[in-house]
Amino acid sequence: MKEFTHLDSKGRVNMVDISDKYPTKRTAVAKSEVHTRKDTIEKIISNGVAKGNVVETAKLTGITAAKKTSELIFLCHPIKITGIDFDFKINETSIEIFCKVTANDQTGAEMEALTGVSLAALAIYDMCKAYDKRMTITNTMLLKKTGGKSGDFVR
Amino acid sequence: MKEFTHLDSKGRVNMVDISDKYPTKRTAVAKSEVHTRKDTIEKIISNGVAKGNVVETAKLTGITAAKKTSELIFLCHPIKITGIDFDFKINETSIEIFCKVTANDQTGAEMEALTGVSLAALAIYDMCKAYDKRMTITNTMLLKKTGGKSGDFVR
Amino acid sequence: MKEFTHLDSKGRVNMVDISDKYPTKRTAVAKSEVHTRKDTIEKIISNGVAKGNVVETAKLTGITAAKKTSELIFLCHPIKITGIDFDFKINETSIEIFCKVTANDQTGAEMEALTGVSLAALAIYDMCKAYDKRMTITNTMLLKKTGGKSGDFVR
Amino acid sequence: MKEFTHLDSKGRVNMVDISDKYPTKRTAVAKSEVHTRKDTIEKIISNGVAKGNVVETAKLTGITAAKKTSELIFLCHPIKITGIDFDFKINETSIEIFCKVTANDQTGAEMEALTGVSLAALAIYDMCKAYDKRMTITNTMLLKKTGGKSGDFVR
Amino acid sequence: MKEFTHLDSKGRVNMVDISDKYPTKRTAVAKSEVHTRKDTIEKIISNGVAKGNVVETAKLTGITAAKKTSELIFLCHPIKITGIDFDFKINETSIEIFCKVTANDQTGAEMEALTGVSLAALAIYDMCKAYDKRMTITNTMLLKKTGGKSGDFVR
Amino acid sequence: MKEFTHLDSKGRVNMVDISDKYPTKRTAVAKSEVHTRKDTIEKIISNGVAKGNVVETAKLTGITAAKKTSELIFLCHPIKITGIDFDFKINETSIEIFCKVTANDQTGAEMEALTGVSLAALAIYDMCKAYDKRMTITNTMLLKKTGGKSGDFVR
Repeated sequence: MKEFTHLDSKGRVNMVDISDKYPTKRTAVAKSEVHTRKDTIEKIISNGVAKGNVVETAKLTGITAAKKTSELIFLCHPIKITGIDFDFKINETSIEIFCKVTANDQTGAEMEALTGVSLAALAIYDMCKAYDKRMTITNTMLLKKTGGKSGDFVR
Repeated sequence: MKEFTHLDSKGRVNMVDISDKYPTKRTAVAKSEVHTRKDTIEKIISNGVAKGNVVETAKLTGITAAKKTSELIFLCHPIKITGIDFDFKINETSIEIFCKVTANDQTGAEMEALTGVSLAALAIYDMCKAYDKRMTITNTMLLKKTGGKSGDFVR
Repeated sequence: MKEFTHLDSKGRVNMVDISDKYPTKRTAVAKSEVHTRKDTIEKIISNGVAKGNVVETAKLTGITAAKKTSELIFLCHPIKITGIDFDFKINETSIEIFCKVTANDQTGAEMEALTGVSLAALAIYDMCKAYDKRMTITNTMLLKKTGGKSGDFVR
Repeated sequence: MKEFTHLDSKGRVNMVDISDKYPTKRTAVAKSEVHTRKDTIEKIISNGVAKGNVVETAKLTGITAAKKTSELIFLCHPIKITGIDFDFKINETSIEIFCKVTANDQTGAEMEALTGVSLAALAIYDMCKAYDKRMTITNTMLLKKTGGKSGDFVR
Repeated sequence: MKEFTHLDSKGRVNMVDISDKYPTKRTAVAKSEVHTRKDTIEKIISNGVAKGNVVETAKLTGITAAKKTSELIFLCHPIKITGIDFDFKINETSIEIFCKVTANDQTGAEMEALTGVSLAALAIYDMCKAYDKRMTITNTMLLKKTGGKSGDFVR
Repeated sequence: MKEFTHLDSKGRVNMVDISDKYPTKRTAVAKSEVHTRKDTIEKIISNGVAKGNVVETAKLTGITAAKKTSELIFLCHPIKITGIDFDFKINETSIEIFCKVTANDQTGAEMEALTGVSLAALAIYDMCKAYDKRMTITNTMLLKKTGGKSGDFVR
């Protein structure tokens, strides 16, 4: 691939060339958690948050952000996303956010899933910040990925 | 597809998973109409609108918007657009806008064609609003679609 | 403003220079209608549409699009939007969409309000197209605008 | 503000109208942490990560994302950002990311600062995921905000 | 401004804090040139280029790009653009592109004007590349800027 | 492809329909040059520019811009980019920027490579404009392209 003779100062790779790989089905599942007070969670459950439905807004925010991943993360390839699925588990003082991204590409969808949960979490913060500015977004991580030659990964 | 065990509160689907479908050639044709006064149409025909060439600007606006569809419509998949074609029919007191989008994907191009005509219509409004604030955009609809397992559609 | 001596071929204005105007409070209200079948409306009312809450999604789509107006409509200035408010009136076979945009700028918010209702209408189409491909978006128009030296406008 | 008579089904507010407030200087500081293995941190410190300089890329990613906040978070107003400043503290097995956003607006910059640190954290994940897929982004929170009638906040 | 105690590794500034400056009227004028063959220029003049009107498309491309400058150039502040004006001088084997950007802000509009001419030039390349792949974009430079405490600049 | 009967006024093509072509591997290499003073180059080499690392920022700016090409250049198709590689040659009073884009598509990557070098050049201008406002971006051109039925091109 390297036909350049005077590489950049550090000889660093750029956006990795994946043109000789075949597209295969890829999935990635990420999670994140938003921790807040019990009364904020109660407002969310009873759909009593003034700015609107928190879970619905978080889901749409996360889907929209996952599709923008290659614009937000500079070295990400634009990939052929074929599905984005969100799930929310509401606990006493936290919401767990799960995002599964399916793609058919030469490279994986980990960053899309992680970007999805991260922005969904930020949307929850935005919807509820009038009630609790101390909300914390935590444990954002990759849970699982399948497809690709580096093999499957399950945390 | 559903490996999540605690689905979101309403059990709603998210961005539909199309990873097990094959890409096929898809086309979609949409139309919209902008109604205005006779003298505004005459300005458009004689290329006498101060802000510039109305039809050319509307076409470029529509093409650009059609390519942004998956960013604007939250549950749309990014699709492999292979062609966008605009056509304009100028009547005495209206302009009809037609947009045909061709794609090679697992899902159709209806929203792309509808977004294309809608933004082309808004561009016409913007170019001519100094002459007629009462312009109305109307009859935005899907005329035809081909490809995909749900079969062809002609209105 | 024109210090260029060899103007573009047609001597057309470009993006109008508003630098010598003062920012003032502006409002614009636009509407649009989506016409569909009675049973689709019933699904929307009972929150029975598989893709999710139609009105909530349309509202968020419209807000997001209104903020992107200066990116979508080439000759629009980026304006200081201070509020975007949506309202929906659900009839037997149609939904009326209203969008009010408030801004503090040297130029008005008409295109923002029109872009808002247009994209909210397209979102409704997208959510319900599995039930009715013949839905029509119609009567997109400016209802009212206030502020600015050209005076108020009420349709 | 509410001149609509048939409010949306739940009577929810939309994008809050801030047109009657005065712009004042606002600051917000947020933080986030990326936890990884000691050897990954060593690669980052020695500038030995194949994809490039991790801290520099994270900073530019965070700045770019903070400027896109009103596009990513649906109910955020576009605000007049006047400065974005990042800082990184590298520990034995974690990197702490700090982002301070300054704005001159009618509303605060909390979401901008939180979006900045979140995307900077995701950029670090992307740069280093070849070495450690178990990296975790955690403790994303607002540390401080000043300006605005709700008063200052320090965590 | 610097309240961070453990600055990033190199102590570099980030996006400069301009919050203590007053907005003033700013203008910037940039130019660029596209060099091609005589017969390509003749096609442009006679409006005979198959892809459409070259000058009109270049102008709209440049206006749209100038508005995106703070998204494309990472350390640029989003500024209050109040006008964008393009001008084209067509010579025997070249087109000169001029862009004047007017803004009311705490920082200047140089990058907006330079981004405007650069993208207008790329649009000309795109429209005409079927006729001449050897077209060259050259002499992109700032001609003039006014406003701001660093004083006026005329090249 | 043309099923429209009342083509637009000039009968112009729109966004060319490539749906009947097969995707093949494409590469395009473009270059651009930034000319400045010797002392500015010395600051860049010694990593002494106050705004940060010039080459690293230019590279990331160019990669990000190349991915946005179909948004910036109205008639460009969105293509399946598989790699983006930048190289910089630093001379006494100039920097040469090279960008190679690899894609797997029915159409080529020339505009992506040209957009990449153009924005990388603008980023260098932005980083260094405090030292030299007379910097000039010049000789932006396509050096090479491979793949596609129109055959290879080497300048």
